[in-house]
Parts: sequence; structure tokens; C-alpha cells
Amino acid sequence: MTAEPIPGWLDALTGRISGLDEAAMAAARERQANLTKPPGSLGRLEAIAVHLAGIQSTVQPRAARSAVIVAAGDHGITEEGVSAYPSAVTAQMVANFLAGGAAINAIAGVAGARLVVADFGVAADLDPHPALVAAKVARGTANFARGPAMTRDQAAAAVQAGARIVATEHERGLDVLALGEMGIGNTTAAAALTAVLTGAPPAAVTGRGTGLDDAALAHKVKVVEAALARHRLTRDDPFAALVAVGGFEIAGLVGAILEAAARRVAVVLDGFITGAAALVAVGMAPATRGFLVASHRSVEPGHGILLDALGLDPLFDLQLRLGEGSGAALALPLIAAAVAAHNQMATFAEARVSGRGEG
Amino acid sequence: MTAEPIPGWLDALTGRISGLDEAAMAAARERQANLTKPPGSLGRLEAIAVHLAGIQSTVQPRAARSAVIVAAGDHGITEEGVSAYPSAVTAQMVANFLAGGAAINAIAGVAGARLVVADFGVAADLDPHPALVAAKVARGTANFARGPAMTRDQAAAAVQAGARIVATEHERGLDVLALGEMGIGNTTAAAALTAVLTGAPPAAVTGRGTGLDDAALAHKVKVVEAALARHRLTRDDPFAALVAVGGFEIAGLVGAILEAAARRVAVVLDGFITGAAALVAVGMAPATRGFLVASHRSVEPGHGILLDALGLDPLFDLQLRLGEGSGAALALPLIAAAVAAHNQMATFAEARVSGRGEG
Repeated sequence: MTAEPIPGWLDALTGRISGLDEAAMAAARERQANLTKPPGSLGRLEAIAVHLAGIQSTVQPRAARSAVIVAAGDHGITEEGVSAYPSAVTAQMVANFLAGGAAINAIAGVAGARLVVADFGVAADLDPHPALVAAKVARGTANFARGPAMTRDQAAAAVQAGARIVATEHERGLDVLALGEMGIGNTTAAAALTAVLTGAPPAAVTGRGTGLDDAALAHKVKVVEAALARHRLTRDDPFAALVAVGGFEIAGLVGAILEAAARRVAVVLDGFITGAAALVAVGMAPATRGFLVASHRSVEPGHGILLDALGLDPLFDLQLRLGEGSGAALALPLIAAAVAAHNQMATFAEARVSGRGEG
Repeated sequence: MTAEPIPGWLDALTGRISGLDEAAMAAARERQANLTKPPGSLGRLEAIAVHLAGIQSTVQPRAARSAVIVAAGDHGITEEGVSAYPSAVTAQMVANFLAGGAAINAIAGVAGARLVVADFGVAADLDPHPALVAAKVARGTANFARGPAMTRDQAAAAVQAGARIVATEHERGLDVLALGEMGIGNTTAAAALTAVLTGAPPAAVTGRGTGLDDAALAHKVKVVEAALARHRLTRDDPFAALVAVGGFEIAGLVGAILEAAARRVAVVLDGFITGAAALVAVGMAPATRGFLVASHRSVEPGHGILLDALGLDPLFDLQLRLGEGSGAALALPLIAAAVAAHNQMATFAEARVSGRGEG
């Protein structure tokens, strides 16, 4: 199969993404070496500060202004019995986010991050709310066991809507973007995307999601295997994979990631679903990889495979498997602390502290 | 050798420490089961919230009010050439903490924690400062390669001073206490204490500290081995071990840990030094263990052995080896987020979200 052309605006978006600023990173490493601590003693916090210097093209990056985008959408694949919860929970949880009653509200609050909830394709009519971005493409994807999850135009619309949300947030002031999602059925879509884009077998990347038992897990693996046999997707056409087996919220996250990378904003991934969106985005624009930070290692088995494929090493493993951006939001204070130490610490000379071996 | 009696006030302090409140923990687990998320999906965050419920004896604990105590002291053992940095750095770094130029200032700032710097035995006269607690027992310990690091009265004075600082902080409002330290030479004291109190060989628990090379590390191991051969300490007399091979800041931390446990305040440990203080405290009052949280896994090899002996599993490993309380302060937002989610999330019934298998 020959890949069909992607829309011109999307080509332009991926074209705006360039590499990390090596000179800024070298200057940040030099700054780290002169701060009042034994060299390297802040471990990965030093690497985070240097990474953000490369992203923001400055020796002293910022991390104080952050937002969490929670992308929501429903999945026709739930008809196949792949989730422990009914699809109705997606809309109910979106209402819970807007009412402030979900885990992500509490965690984003502690992190001091703005919370943006975006409906890319929830299978219910949602009441307007100041914190809700209405970007619904359709009321849930089609069942990808029977045909493509969406049309190319639908995928493009969701990607574009995700990019627009980041553009708006960036104009409000945004140093670090955390991503999350809500969508009953979306671990099945993420497993299918991960299998296509990493080459791993479906059984290795398909997990229990919100809590399947052994029999239901075996069935879910078969659903993914059958879908991949039907759609004949290839690694070199990630947009086609998104159309065939993705989700509207995953497409929205792809757009958010690409726009953030184009605007040189650090993107903090959450778990398996946001990671699958990152695989698609990196497949479309490889330089995107430089803008990604992996927050946590999820319990979902496909997540580790996906992180290896992206070359990302998560900051922590707290045995999370909730989604919503909970892990990504938990990483925000660590990133803020890394950058605060980098920017605020005195140098040995400024503080008149003796160096190694100086009596 | 027969253990000498410890002071009466210290006996009274350890006698005030009791176990976790199992009923409060059961109620907190019940609450977690009804919150709007798949059961267990917040992983270790759920366990943190339940732990704090057991500590504070309430189903909805608090974690918003936190302080970092950085205990400072100097070590006579540095005469043996066991550190990459000169002793003068201890006082210089205390000045740096007070001027706001150290890593812990930045990290505590992001965490919203009060910072208390305490001089338990720095080998220099320090100018008064509003953020400095003057609790100097002596200008550095004696060289424990040649005799006891301190007298029993000195150890008791430092323990008592540490306890008083926690009492003061608790009266200001304190839900979670993070501990840190500064003392050139103190990884040698911590290695000696860890060897005595865990039974591990000195070579297994002695590390590079602020950055020793291979030859200097081999020498440091020999210094610890020789000191332990001289002092003939036993696991069942932790106070005697503290006197013989401890440090004033370590003794201060022991007092802080015991007083926090007596007041049912969660204690977040940093790395190897605060962990060695916890070993002493738990040796003196085993119920203290229930009040401890391990923040990170340090690069120091003795730290893992010490955590295993305490039965603690750290929350993250960011390859830190700075001390100052940097890892403990980084854990504060994670703990705050765990407790915020526990307290603020809606239940399934409140949010009208469907449970598992409800169509």
C-alpha cells in the first residue's frame, strides 16, 4: 500500500519541529558543574534541567507554568467486550473532572497546574463548561474490529483540535505540558497502535486495562490480533495506523504533542495511552522525541515496550494504572524542583564554598 | 559489656511511641475502594494515604504542612582522610542554606515546606540567623578511629535538641517532617552505624560519599573496619553505637525522629545518613518504624542494605547522592498529592459514575 498524503497544514506542523539546542544544553551542563554540590550529585534532576535548557534554547529554562490536558473520547471497540467498565463511564468521568472530584483534579492542584479537559469524541452530549474544550469529532470511534476506527478527515480534525488547544495554552504561558486521557476501551486502541509501531506481538502489549481477568485478557489479545490481521498496517505510516485502530482522544494527543514540540514546550507523558500517541507523533516527526519526558512506568505491559521504542526512561514507578494524566501531573513538581535548583543555586564562587580537595 | 542506662527523659520519649492505628487504616482503605477510579489504580499513592491515616489516627489525614530539618555537624574522623571535601565545607554550606543558595532551598521552596537548619556540632562559630537553630554540642566529634566520637552526655544533648526542634515545629503545625543533613565525613559515621546495626560487613556499606576514587574508598573501608574492631559494638545497644561512631547531626536526627513518632508525625527520610539515624531510632524504639517513609534510593551502597533492614521501599530512584534532605523534600509533593487525592476525590455514588460491569 502506498501512503496517502497527509494534509498540508499537518505537513507544515511537523516541519516546524526541530532538534534540541545542543549549545544551550552544553551551557546548562557547565552551569551545573559550578553549582554548590558535588558534581552529578543531583542525578536525574541535573539531566532534567539540561533537557529543558535544550528544549527552551536557554541556559536557564523555566518550569513554573504548567498545564494538564486530559483528552477524552469513546471507542467502538468496546462492542467486543474489551473493558471492565461500560462506555458510559467516559462521559461520567469527564463530568467528574469538571466537578473537581477526580484524582487528576487533586494531583494537578498540588502541582499548581491548570487543568484542561477536552472532548475529542465522547459518545454523549456534554454540557458546556468553562474548563471543557468542545472538540468532538464524532460520538465515539467506529469498531475497529469491523472497519477503520475513523476516517482520515476525522483523524486530521482531532489532531488539529489537539494542536489548537496547545496553541491556546501556550499563549497563556506554558513551560511544561502534561498529558492525560480518559476513554473506556482506549488501552485496546493503544495496544493495537503499539503493536504496529514497535513491531511487538499483540500478546506482549495488551494488558488488563482497568481490571480484566485472565479470560477477558485472552479475548482482548485476540481482538487486537484479528484487527491487525484485517487492517494490514505498517510502521512507516503512523497516520494510517491512527486512522485504522486509534481513537479520537489519541489523535487529539498526537496534535497536542506535535504543536508542543513545534513551540519548544516540554511534553510530560503519562502512561500507555499518551505513550501510544507519542509513538504516532514521533513516527510522523522524529525530532518530536527530543521534547518528551516519561513520568512513570505504568503497570500495563505494553508501556515498557513503548518506552523502550521511544528511548525514554521514566522518572518513577508508583504502580499507577489510572490514566487521566495522574502520573504526568505527579512529575511536574519534580521537574519544577530540578529547574528551580538549576536556576536558584549559588555557584561555589558566589557562595564561597571550597571545592574538592581544597583545604 | 552491659548497656548503661539511657537518660530518663529519653526513656519517657521512646515510651510515648506507639503503633499505627489499624482501625483508621482500615477506614482509609474502605474510603479508597469507593473513590472514582478502578480499585488499586493509584498504586503506591493509595498506600501512602492509608499509611498517613494510620499515623495520624484519622481516615482523612493531612499532608499540607511540612518542614525540612537540615541537621549539620562535623566529624573528627575526617582526620583519617575519608572525604573528598575539607571539613570547612560544612560551615560554608550551612551559610549557603541560610543565604538560600543550596539545592534544598530550591526544592523545599517548590514543595512549600519550611526549612529549618540546625547546628548540632559544626566545627566553626556560626553567626545567628532566624532560620538557624543553635544547638551546638561541640565543635565537631572526636575522631572515632582513636576513641569514642562523643560522650554519652553529648549524644543525649544532641538527641534532646533534635526532639525539641520537632516539638517547636509541631506546635507551628506539622503534618509531614522531611529530614536532611550536612556534615563532611558523615557517610563514614553512617557506614559504621549501618555495619553495627544491620550486621553487614563494612565493605558492603561504605561508599564514595561526595566522590572518592577507588584508592580512597579502599582506605575508607579500612578506617571503618578498624574503628569497629576497636569499639566492639553490638546491635542491641544502638545508643552506645551512636556515642562511639555516630555524629552530632545524626544524634540530632535520632531525637527528631523519636519526637516526630511520639507526636504521630510522618517522617520522610532522605538518604544514607538520615537512614542511619532511623536505624538508631528504631533500635531504641521499634514502633518508630511505622512512622517512616523512604523517599529515594541513594547511590550509596549501604543505603539499600539499611532500607532492607528497616523494611522500607523508597518511592523513587533519581540517582541522588547529595543529602541536605533533597530527596526527602522531593517526596513531599508526591505525599501531598496522595493525600489530596484521598481526601478530595468523589466516591462513585457522589459522582454518579458507574462501577465495574454496570451497563
